[in-house]
Amino acid sequence: MDSATAQLWLGGQDFALTSVPLPQLRDGELLVRINAATVCGSDRHTVLGRRPGETPSILGHEGVGTVVASKRSDVSKGERIVFSVTAPCGACARCRAGFTAKCLNVRKIGHELFDSCWRLSGTYSTHIHLLAGHPVSAVPDEIGSAQASVAGCAIATVMAVMEAAGDFSGKTVLVNGVGMLGLVAIVEAKRRGAGLVIGCDMNRLSLDAADGVADRLVTSAKGGTADIVLELSGAIGGVVDSLAACKVGGTVVLAGSVTPAGTVKIDPEWVVRGWRSITGVHNYEPRHLANAVEFLGAAGRMLPWELVLAGPIPFDALPGEFQNPSAGLRTVVVG
Amino acid sequence: MDSATAQLWLGGQDFALTSVPLPQLRDGELLVRINAATVCGSDRHTVLGRRPGETPSILGHEGVGTVVASKRSDVSKGERIVFSVTAPCGACARCRAGFTAKCLNVRKIGHELFDSCWRLSGTYSTHIHLLAGHPVSAVPDEIGSAQASVAGCAIATVMAVMEAAGDFSGKTVLVNGVGMLGLVAIVEAKRRGAGLVIGCDMNRLSLDAADGVADRLVTSAKGGTADIVLELSGAIGGVVDSLAACKVGGTVVLAGSVTPAGTVKIDPEWVVRGWRSITGVHNYEPRHLANAVEFLGAAGRMLPWELVLAGPIPFDALPGEFQNPSAGLRTVVVG
Repeated sequence: MDSATAQLWLGGQDFALTSVPLPQLRDGELLVRINAATVCGSDRHTVLGRRPGETPSILGHEGVGTVVASKRSDVSKGERIVFSVTAPCGACARCRAGFTAKCLNVRKIGHELFDSCWRLSGTYSTHIHLLAGHPVSAVPDEIGSAQASVAGCAIATVMAVMEAAGDFSGKTVLVNGVGMLGLVAIVEAKRRGAGLVIGCDMNRLSLDAADGVADRLVTSAKGGTADIVLELSGAIGGVVDSLAACKVGGTVVLAGSVTPAGTVKIDPEWVVRGWRSITGVHNYEPRHLANAVEFLGAAGRMLPWELVLAGPIPFDALPGEFQNPSAGLRTVVVG
Repeated sequence: MDSATAQLWLGGQDFALTSVPLPQLRDGELLVRINAATVCGSDRHTVLGRRPGETPSILGHEGVGTVVASKRSDVSKGERIVFSVTAPCGACARCRAGFTAKCLNVRKIGHELFDSCWRLSGTYSTHIHLLAGHPVSAVPDEIGSAQASVAGCAIATVMAVMEAAGDFSGKTVLVNGVGMLGLVAIVEAKRRGAGLVIGCDMNRLSLDAADGVADRLVTSAKGGTADIVLELSGAIGGVVDSLAACKVGGTVVLAGSVTPAGTVKIDPEWVVRGWRSITGVHNYEPRHLANAVEFLGAAGRMLPWELVLAGPIPFDALPGEFQNPSAGLRTVVVG
């Protein structure tokens, strides 16, 4: 086989199955056969026009695959791997300072213009081409590909959020927004020793999925109090309520607010006298991808996968999936 | 001698020199002869009616003194000590969690009603009575009492701010508000390896004091950029400019906002995509008082004491000092 097949996104809800020649690998590069990709909420936003996206492009930024060609000494042909959403340059000031998540020249899987030098850059394709230095993690055999497919976006991001939140021992934790990320955050907060983990969502499907995972479920963060608040909804009302729920000495980690949604009013005296911290997290570091794989192996069984994952759907059913979403937090696509 | 003499604050600019019987010490308590106290900006605010205060009370929350009676096994008569502004209860949930700075039953030196069971509670007095469990630090002989007198409020607070800001190595640091706290923060940021330390203040006296201490001085934080921003002014415009100056991946520590001054608008997306942190600090932990004494011994010589400290003025000149402030950041009062 000398070509890949991609679901090329043309804008709106239009996709075209497109044959793409396989690239000649350069030093440090990988060619990976996608075993499973997932439809993340961000992609739905993009296709519905609520989030800008380059066209044409290959969407899909979560996935797992098997290395079919490697020009990288630390990765072998045949290995099953997950990969970071971000492709850091490794050379800019931020990368050199170990802050690759905000690389000044960052490129992202599932976000790049197709008419560029990096064509096979999304997971809605039979193959993905990983450039030199791309953060990857090997996936142990005991982790299924459907589960592994969410490591590189949802789970790794949560691992960065958890690190930013600090010590969970004995703490009361409020997770606002119990989608894919929220479920992982709840499980991981308990694993890190939280005393009480409360999940908050208005969505019935999310609450059903979190039933038995969180210690308590609520439909509004308003009036809550917690030592650690993880805001994953991105809704401005959710941010307001999450801030208000933060106890004296507490920490709010904001990670859902990745699209413009307005501003919140904050009283600096409330921050100061309450010794409160508000921290944003966006993207993640390679260590968080490794944490994500470790999480799947050690705690993955705690997730209600039957409610989380929909599908698998075949590759050519992807356009229809955007028109009529399956009932699940993540729809798995197999090539 | 069986009585102390205090400058009892009656409200407004009225003080009365008052004789107060020395207390009978209980287990764990200390009686300390004040060697030097200082007039902190907060006390000036209180006397000018810009900050609420109990009346009558003994103001003064910075000072250093010699133990004249001890019922505490770890502190001996004759030792020179500094003491925390806060008197934590040691028993509440926060104290038990090691978060004494925000003790639920906190009492504070220089803030307590005189007609209470803790009468000698301020440093504008010949003696102060320290209750059981009060955080104290011994002062080495090589540190003068005038210098040591600012450890317990200004310097210890800065040590808590520095800890909250994280790693300074090679970072660009903006210190907004270069009073007593700001000067210490500048010196300590350099000692902790900061690459560039910028001081910002509109006050001529402060800028003069910081000349040669900071790497660069500016009169507005507007348009600045820094990895770490330490906001010590408390002015709402200062907070707005400090937030705007925070680089991607950066941290803003707010510590000046201890009186109501309005709100600031924050875009959660700016926090999230910028991986920024905003942290408040109020009061400090016992370890920060120890850090403050260590700072004085190791780096105290870096401070322009001749511009920082005014006085010393005698004890009976204190009321006049509030009417006609001396030219310095802290006026030293000796008993």
